[in-house]
Amino acid sequence: MSLDAVLSRIDSDLPAATDRLLDLLRIPSISTDPEFKADCDRAADWLVADLTSLGAKIEKRPTPGHPMVVGHIGEGAPHLLFYGHYDVQPVDPLDLWDRDPFDPELQETDKGQVIRGRGAADDKGQLMTFVEACRAWIAENGKLPCKITFFFEGEEESGSPSLVPFMKENAEELKTDIALICDTGLFESRVPAITTMLRGLLGEELTITGPSKDLHSGMYGGIAMNPIRVLSRIIAGLHDATGRITIPDFYEGVPEISNALKAQWDGLNFDSKGFLGDVGLSAPAGEQNRSPLEMIWSRPTCEVNGIWGGYTGKGFKTVLPSKASAKISFRLVGQQDPLKIRENFRKMVEDQLPEDCTVEFHGHGASAAGQMETGDPAFEAARQALSDEWPDTAAYIGCGGSIPIAGYFKTILGTDAMLIGFGKDNDQIHSPNEKYDMESFHKGIRSWARVLDALSG
Amino acid sequence: MSLDAVLSRIDSDLPAATDRLLDLLRIPSISTDPEFKADCDRAADWLVADLTSLGAKIEKRPTPGHPMVVGHIGEGAPHLLFYGHYDVQPVDPLDLWDRDPFDPELQETDKGQVIRGRGAADDKGQLMTFVEACRAWIAENGKLPCKITFFFEGEEESGSPSLVPFMKENAEELKTDIALICDTGLFESRVPAITTMLRGLLGEELTITGPSKDLHSGMYGGIAMNPIRVLSRIIAGLHDATGRITIPDFYEGVPEISNALKAQWDGLNFDSKGFLGDVGLSAPAGEQNRSPLEMIWSRPTCEVNGIWGGYTGKGFKTVLPSKASAKISFRLVGQQDPLKIRENFRKMVEDQLPEDCTVEFHGHGASAAGQMETGDPAFEAARQALSDEWPDTAAYIGCGGSIPIAGYFKTILGTDAMLIGFGKDNDQIHSPNEKYDMESFHKGIRSWARVLDALSG
Repeated sequence: MSLDAVLSRIDSDLPAATDRLLDLLRIPSISTDPEFKADCDRAADWLVADLTSLGAKIEKRPTPGHPMVVGHIGEGAPHLLFYGHYDVQPVDPLDLWDRDPFDPELQETDKGQVIRGRGAADDKGQLMTFVEACRAWIAENGKLPCKITFFFEGEEESGSPSLVPFMKENAEELKTDIALICDTGLFESRVPAITTMLRGLLGEELTITGPSKDLHSGMYGGIAMNPIRVLSRIIAGLHDATGRITIPDFYEGVPEISNALKAQWDGLNFDSKGFLGDVGLSAPAGEQNRSPLEMIWSRPTCEVNGIWGGYTGKGFKTVLPSKASAKISFRLVGQQDPLKIRENFRKMVEDQLPEDCTVEFHGHGASAAGQMETGDPAFEAARQALSDEWPDTAAYIGCGGSIPIAGYFKTILGTDAMLIGFGKDNDQIHSPNEKYDMESFHKGIRSWARVLDALSG
Repeated sequence: MSLDAVLSRIDSDLPAATDRLLDLLRIPSISTDPEFKADCDRAADWLVADLTSLGAKIEKRPTPGHPMVVGHIGEGAPHLLFYGHYDVQPVDPLDLWDRDPFDPELQETDKGQVIRGRGAADDKGQLMTFVEACRAWIAENGKLPCKITFFFEGEEESGSPSLVPFMKENAEELKTDIALICDTGLFESRVPAITTMLRGLLGEELTITGPSKDLHSGMYGGIAMNPIRVLSRIIAGLHDATGRITIPDFYEGVPEISNALKAQWDGLNFDSKGFLGDVGLSAPAGEQNRSPLEMIWSRPTCEVNGIWGGYTGKGFKTVLPSKASAKISFRLVGQQDPLKIRENFRKMVEDQLPEDCTVEFHGHGASAAGQMETGDPAFEAARQALSDEWPDTAAYIGCGGSIPIAGYFKTILGTDAMLIGFGKDNDQIHSPNEKYDMESFHKGIRSWARVLDALSG
């Protein structure tokens, strides 16, 4: 088994690999629109046929929605699972596309060649980086270096309603040593990365009631408690002057990142000025004495996502409203317990209610943070493999949002996931004129060949 | 001139007076609905005819909207103006009325006889109390005790668009020693009152912008400034812990009420528990160490009438919004200067803005408080006259809301207005099944006879 030979084959096979991707991109597998149900099925069939040609035992598996594609190939340790999704986002607004989203083509740009079309980056181009790496490996060596289970979903862009039930029903078959997920990006479009920290999410909605009905502020203004004032005071008190969240015991289970990780993050030279400048901001507004990357990856947050109460239409109405509401979410890290935080948050709100006010709460989901076991030598091996392929050293990074599938591997299958992807910030996923850089595709395939080599070494 | 004879005549003429009111109530003079334009005209004609029969020189005066009715009668001092409005509110929802709103009738209730129909209390029944008092006076004495100008409007329920221009154009004709307005109520449905303090109103709308577009709270939560948080902090800081408003110089020009007035208000035995209990509240929420009546009549307020920002629909969206807005109004008293307060409020908000946030303001009207010159002996004379008619001693009271017409008499004509009315809290004005108590009508007519006597004495 020679890695160099596999990499050479990847280079020489790139035009054919690109043609295969273009072929898959021509299938309009929009999962959220029932009109494209047959197309989703066709994309699943395409994957079954392509991987069968590599020697995989693979098939479509029915679900109440679009089918899963599950298959196995190879022998030996470790046993890896690869996850990707074959469905794509809708294409509206169509008039903002420069060409038919499902008539993909290669385009030359001043930043290099790109593959233009819906799904090029999210996620067909990315999932094919892994498939093409397997293809090159088999072509060169007659077989893969380890056992691989493929697991493709067709509902990722429409909320994955069948995913959890399917994983639970097929847990034995899907349990592997490690899961590989290719649906993320390079850090700042440049640095290869393994996402190892995912923030959890707690959603809360609260409605504060003062008077039993809307009042006239001329009649009752000054004597009746205004629930907007109460709600504002509660929200204003959720952070102290240093940006810390004031809910009792909120920081229980929030770890400090290790010096090694801190050094890696410092090495990323994150362009926080550019990141904020893109959205019209100039200064990080989080906790004092925390770096920008800590603020978005390793520190918990409390954000008001919506607020409403009283008259919000045009003009003016001198109403003193009966109710005021807000939607508030918390991003969680480390070992923070979402249910305990919910309880403490609600108690803190109740403790601040003045006489005559009541509060109703409605919970909107509560998921803990995800933290991969980077102590597992496989992580360091994969990180080294990525560093070998790209100009920059690969890093373990965090992700401010949540990627539910990674959590499901952990909670349902007990498997850690390596989130490795090659997307760039300007890929315009979910938007018109989606593209995937040829560099992402080519070096992505080469990256997976190196990772396979490293994990099987 | 014998007042007793006039009062006796009022008593014996009550059935005929009631018939005249029922006649006027049958005219559906809904000013806001163009379909009833001819009916508004008809109501104006009705008043012209009725007052002409008393000997007044009176006529309809055209405006761009519904006509004014202006006329004069009598001689001697003082010269009084009486204002009322002949238009009524719409009747929707019609299915909540127990009978045709414009087929009025007398009904017996367990609290006495009532006149049921649209406009019975607001304002046809009230304005006829004055007309009937004049009629009895003339019938008994051959003439009125002083000169009276009648001024009836037909657009009060649709924003009075023609009022100010008409008053300005006819200022000389409308200038009198004092204006009488019959469009208010008894205090707590029981105590006769002259409303001498009207709060002013300043409306402000503000929008705070943080990021230049809505952000994903997973991506930017913790590092980007959330404008809802900023707005909440600003609102929370508008009152201190004692309920006082914190805008610099806000209390400049806020007078303490006199001991005499304080004694009157204490004597009203205001049922603040009932007032608040009706709307599900139990405790006054205004400034500490102020009585409930001070809170709603003689103290300035700051109320948030509306707030909105971010996602306010069903479910949850982890948006970190670009903008957050609020509508805030201030009730003003005494000599508070609305424009100065606007300026100080805006500066205070700007001073609290963190880096990266901007604010836009939109003003929604600014009117100073109104305060009648109760030092004028006419006020004490009228108060005594009302006290003579009713079981309770009459009081000077405040009004938390604003009654623009009273301000116009002052600012356009330089005339103080006496707001005297006999409505009760349960008259259901603007609502289905509006009524006017026969007690209000009967004692209202008698009250005006006494006031005419007292002012002319």
